[in-house]
Amino acid sequence: MLLIKIGGGENINWEYICEDIALLIQGGEKIIVVHGANAVRDDIAERLRIPTKTITSPSGIASVYTDKKAIEVLLMAYCGLVNKEIVRTMQEHAINAIGLSGIDGKLWQAKRKNAIYAVENGKTKLIRNSFVGKVEKINAPLLQLLIQNQYVPVLTTPAISYENEIVNVDNDFAVAVMVQALEIKKVISLFGESGLLRDMNNKKSVIAKIKKQELEEYLTYTKGRMKKKLLGAKKAFENGLEAMYWGDGRIKHPIKNALEGKGTIIQ
Amino acid sequence: MLLIKIGGGENINWEYICEDIALLIQGGEKIIVVHGANAVRDDIAERLRIPTKTITSPSGIASVYTDKKAIEVLLMAYCGLVNKEIVRTMQEHAINAIGLSGIDGKLWQAKRKNAIYAVENGKTKLIRNSFVGKVEKINAPLLQLLIQNQYVPVLTTPAISYENEIVNVDNDFAVAVMVQALEIKKVISLFGESGLLRDMNNKKSVIAKIKKQELEEYLTYTKGRMKKKLLGAKKAFENGLEAMYWGDGRIKHPIKNALEGKGTIIQ
Repeated sequence: MLLIKIGGGENINWEYICEDIALLIQGGEKIIVVHGANAVRDDIAERLRIPTKTITSPSGIASVYTDKKAIEVLLMAYCGLVNKEIVRTMQEHAINAIGLSGIDGKLWQAKRKNAIYAVENGKTKLIRNSFVGKVEKINAPLLQLLIQNQYVPVLTTPAISYENEIVNVDNDFAVAVMVQALEIKKVISLFGESGLLRDMNNKKSVIAKIKKQELEEYLTYTKGRMKKKLLGAKKAFENGLEAMYWGDGRIKHPIKNALEGKGTIIQ
Repeated sequence: MLLIKIGGGENINWEYICEDIALLIQGGEKIIVVHGANAVRDDIAERLRIPTKTITSPSGIASVYTDKKAIEVLLMAYCGLVNKEIVRTMQEHAINAIGLSGIDGKLWQAKRKNAIYAVENGKTKLIRNSFVGKVEKINAPLLQLLIQNQYVPVLTTPAISYENEIVNVDNDFAVAVMVQALEIKKVISLFGESGLLRDMNNKKSVIAKIKKQELEEYLTYTKGRMKKKLLGAKKAFENGLEAMYWGDGRIKHPIKNALEGKGTIIQ
């Protein structure tokens, strides 16, 4: 089984991704897709005049401030517009996709963080009324049921909390939990870069190989989304993953290229 | 198996509906839910400054003009905000709901109408580039798979066309096609009225009983949404339905009341 995680940047080419997934399925591979939608989310939020607000934790991790209104935008963008357009594109490529959020069938159950700390202008503030959490439990039987019946689950945030609230969660961390629950050995992660860059300002500084034991070191000099991806990767390897392939989601044959090591391989 | 269709009006009380569904499930009933979201759709459309535009067919049937932008709003409202909030509410009532659109697993396949006629200021116009269609095929095995595994499918428009386009479809007509595909004998339809009214301006003029053979007569004097519901009902009876219960989706015990004949029973 192959888990393919796709970022939510605006340059992701779903036609190319679907072409590669269709080939893998023809070869008998079982696939789960997890996707983001941050570019569309930010666009809808802007148009609805409730722009996305980013906060930074004391340990330097950026995340989206998610109150009730932000959850609404999240549902519109991730579960509505983007998830269904991806499923449509897959169906066009004869991939029998089913789009689901973590709420459906309690696919992703999360522990809600009732209070989070954020640093603003050098000061640490306590933020309440934020609907964020961390995925802890997976409805593995539901995913297995769909996969055994030749469907491709297409999953996205949000998740559902133990108190049945809708909570935004980190897709990369959810992937790590799925790795354990479904005993997944390979994850492909595609986004709007050629791989993990040694120097963010130099697009050609792709790191070809990382040993899983070295992930901690790389965490020290990455920022923002990349830091989250690395944290998710670290957790996934702790949970039994054997290899992760980071690659470019904008180009022709994105999955084939990633598997052939044209991006970054972590193992 | 019981199919419960819920309108998308703003006064629908999902807490009450979920309480009744939970009781039915405890009694061993298998349930499929189909829901609308027109009130939320109109609100989002308004806020995005692309307000919903209604057109009227030469035969007097009102429908929403659905271009690409309207499809986007539809996805945000029906598949995003409303479908997921319903699934969340159901999960809170221990109903293991899974929210799906007609696109997912090609649940609802529709024939797209490439050109439709609309009457405007007394003149008949041909409208192209409209993404609407009529459901013709159901992925019955997928619904049976979920139901057999104790899930409650929560379905909504849009559907997918034979050319893999996203098309808006009439939920009531889709219900009629599901009646045939799944051999459903009973449908409950809840909305923001007490039942079918003899006089739209008199809320107490609920028609208690209609014989299925009489549906044609009632079609002559109903308008708008109610006409569509009656057309859907007519088709459902042609497809093997035995009884349809129309009732009030705003009050306590909406399903129990409808089944007890407090709204309109068609049979």
